[in-house]
Amino acid sequence: MPRSGPTRIAGAGQGRPRIAVDALGGDRAPNEIVAGALDAAEDGIEVILFGPVGLETHGLELVETTAEIEMDEKPAEAVRAKPGSSLVEAHRAVAAGRADAVLSAGNTGAMLAAGLLHLRRLPGVLRPAIAVPIPAQRGPSVLLDVGANADARPDHLLQFAHMGAIFAEEILGLARPEVRLLSIGEEPEKGNQLTLEAHALLAANGLGFAGNAESRDLLAGAADVVVCDGFTGNIALKLLEGTIKTILDSLRAEITATSRGKLGGLLIRPAARRLRMRLDPDTYGGAYLLGLRGLSVIAHGNSSRRAIANAIRLAARGVDHDVAGRLASRLPERGSPAAV
Amino acid sequence: MPRSGPTRIAGAGQGRPRIAVDALGGDRAPNEIVAGALDAAEDGIEVILFGPVGLETHGLELVETTAEIEMDEKPAEAVRAKPGSSLVEAHRAVAAGRADAVLSAGNTGAMLAAGLLHLRRLPGVLRPAIAVPIPAQRGPSVLLDVGANADARPDHLLQFAHMGAIFAEEILGLARPEVRLLSIGEEPEKGNQLTLEAHALLAANGLGFAGNAESRDLLAGAADVVVCDGFTGNIALKLLEGTIKTILDSLRAEITATSRGKLGGLLIRPAARRLRMRLDPDTYGGAYLLGLRGLSVIAHGNSSRRAIANAIRLAARGVDHDVAGRLASRLPERGSPAAV
Repeated sequence: MPRSGPTRIAGAGQGRPRIAVDALGGDRAPNEIVAGALDAAEDGIEVILFGPVGLETHGLELVETTAEIEMDEKPAEAVRAKPGSSLVEAHRAVAAGRADAVLSAGNTGAMLAAGLLHLRRLPGVLRPAIAVPIPAQRGPSVLLDVGANADARPDHLLQFAHMGAIFAEEILGLARPEVRLLSIGEEPEKGNQLTLEAHALLAANGLGFAGNAESRDLLAGAADVVVCDGFTGNIALKLLEGTIKTILDSLRAEITATSRGKLGGLLIRPAARRLRMRLDPDTYGGAYLLGLRGLSVIAHGNSSRRAIANAIRLAARGVDHDVAGRLASRLPERGSPAAV
Repeated sequence: MPRSGPTRIAGAGQGRPRIAVDALGGDRAPNEIVAGALDAAEDGIEVILFGPVGLETHGLELVETTAEIEMDEKPAEAVRAKPGSSLVEAHRAVAAGRADAVLSAGNTGAMLAAGLLHLRRLPGVLRPAIAVPIPAQRGPSVLLDVGANADARPDHLLQFAHMGAIFAEEILGLARPEVRLLSIGEEPEKGNQLTLEAHALLAANGLGFAGNAESRDLLAGAADVVVCDGFTGNIALKLLEGTIKTILDSLRAEITATSRGKLGGLLIRPAARRLRMRLDPDTYGGAYLLGLRGLSVIAHGNSSRRAIANAIRLAARGVDHDVAGRLASRLPERGSPAAV
């Protein structure tokens, strides 16, 4: 695996990937976190748990921490006020080279704040972005930003496009990823002020830019990389997840309402399970926070054991492919705009 | 049915609702439009078709027009350049009192431009908004704006909330509709600049405002009225429709992949059909353009006969309930901000 250029990247080590896991992050912490970590460890991933004294880790390494950041705390303040929290300590382990990536199912804002403070931005990166793999029907694609930047500028979106394209190449294994801009019509003149300006910027830069994508095609497969501001992306991601769940639940309710339906339900169970599994957000389990000098993976707040195990595997894949290092070396050569 | 206040509202007539239908609007015009119009006419709705000389209307009244506005034309220019088009003539019929509401499956931008030019805004209305009924699991709700204003201000969103609440009362029959703001978290401090400011405005005004709604709850039922800017609403609506279609199609493909699944599929067919019917956008068929001195209903571009028939029924319901007149009389009494 080639190493990155001159920029020092935390966690771009060799050998087994070491993932620093916040045992206190998420609604089902610590039990589901520890259980998921144990599952991932069985794949040969080295998991280091960060949590309170006395946490039962079933043999996994524990770094003892003294505080916890709650979901409702103000992120930047909490990260500064609680340097001994599990979330912050896990970041510091990556910054110090004791781990290759950090993972938490906790407060997303705190992840962003801790990443900016302790891992810091890659040179030239304007804003980090959260990139999430979408289980699209025509194959996985990546949607970004899904929430790091509620308000974004056109040049931010251009850089998200570059970062997303590198992610698609390195992690999804796509040779020349097609990039599209999420908007309200395929024509270049459809959109709001942000997307109209971003469209022009994207079209003028050396990307595989194929124009606007419409949200109706997101699950079928709109493009390899779909770019948007963090507000729009967060709305889209949660709508996708919520709609999948509501429809499958509604279908189950309709089917079990009659005995004929119940019998049919038994027969289609394997098919329904295949679909549910493919669409389940737990299949990826997490999203990358791209643009930092170290790898950060954010898992769902309500992550189950399976979601955590898969998110740790996603983090390990990012370490194996040296995603942060590739971003550091490839963003400048792609002619991405630089921070001023 | 009480009439509106002093503002003259086009189309708030008595007797059978008369709906002016653009026979040339939409991908499947004119055949599906005429077929849908015939179905709606059987319910006692008076349909007036606007289309070219010689159009076969099977006995429905035809107003002969001389031009057509295409989907890819620049809306405002096309509406001005083609006063004899079916879309514009249908609007003028409402403005002149020869019809009570206008309906088209054509260019949404042209509908907005023709509405502003020929029906004009209600006094005090800052911006019209497109309001669409959502077939939520806990009962119908209304989402607005879904595309009239790609960029919106906080005071626009406040007025959309008032218009949506009146719509929910008059058309959905809800006594004290709960209003929520679509954002990226339930907490008031979650959102982008627009929603943060709009949240404060909504909370300070005499609405049934219950805070932010998350997109994940939209299909299950987030609130009676869900308010957002037109870009976000359009993204959300199309994502909802596309995801429903993709999941049901994927499920069918999974089920028919095995003979066991095929048998099960036969047994669950009535249940699946009930669900598909409930979630089908054709069940409403259209969206209201609220805030004009006359009623305008926008149907899907790819409307089928069934969608058109239901959209005409939706328009007729709006006439029966004098939605435009209610908005005219009730917006000022609700203390909605006024246009300057």
